[in-house]
Amino acid sequence: MALDFNQLAQQFTEFYYNQFDSDRTQLGNLYRDESMLTFETSQVQGAKDIVEKLVSLPFQRVAHRITTLDAQPASSNGDVLVMITGDLLIDEEQNPQRFSQVFHLIPDGNSYYVFNDIFRLNYAA
Amino acid sequence: MALDFNQLAQQFTEFYYNQFDSDRTQLGNLYRDESMLTFETSQVQGAKDIVEKLVSLPFQRVAHRITTLDAQPASSNGDVLVMITGDLLIDEEQNPQRFSQVFHLIPDGNSYYVFNDIFRLNYAA
Repeated sequence: MALDFNQLAQQFTEFYYNQFDSDRTQLGNLYRDESMLTFETSQVQGAKDIVEKLVSLPFQRVAHRITTLDAQPASSNGDVLVMITGDLLIDEEQNPQRFSQVFHLIPDGNSYYVFNDIFRLNYAA
Repeated sequence: MALDFNQLAQQFTEFYYNQFDSDRTQLGNLYRDESMLTFETSQVQGAKDIVEKLVSLPFQRVAHRITTLDAQPASSNGDVLVMITGDLLIDEEQNPQRFSQVFHLIPDGNSYYVFNDIFRLNYAA
């Protein structure tokens, strides 16, 4: 892999949110059977259940805007940890919601898959 | 280890923020030479430099309040990933700042150490 962990994190995150915002039914290739998703208070495991959960979210149009993106190597095996904070714009709503998300990416041949995925909206205190 | 990953994450996080808020010079035992900290735009590696960075932060009194805490197993070796969102109250300021933080914890004998630590304040959009 010619990319360093910062480049990988950036490319992965852009690809992920573009795919999520244009057609989130196609996100399954990024997960494996052992992958876990925490979306707000829901926890699901496995690519199939994760995509079902994402597709079932109660909005049609969605746009993620990244505010911060930070990455670190998560092991000596090429794992990468990414934390993103940003804004989520949903359907007709005018006011974006803040979100925080972390991905743990694991190398798999020439590519990476998502092992851990934790997503939270940041509600007002 | 008799704790499951959720209990471990909860106990670690409470211990960490209590220690941070009461005396952050003592946090070094939770890191190792290979540990990495991203604090806003700063990146440092190693327990010594991480504690120096945390101690150098320009506030005296600080209180972390946890809003959400989510954990997942991060490997088959007992690693745990924790994402926290919450409020940070600094010195005389009346309005808390929102923050997001992720810890990647690795088992080490009867205990755990922090391998990855990423911290971001969530500024208004």
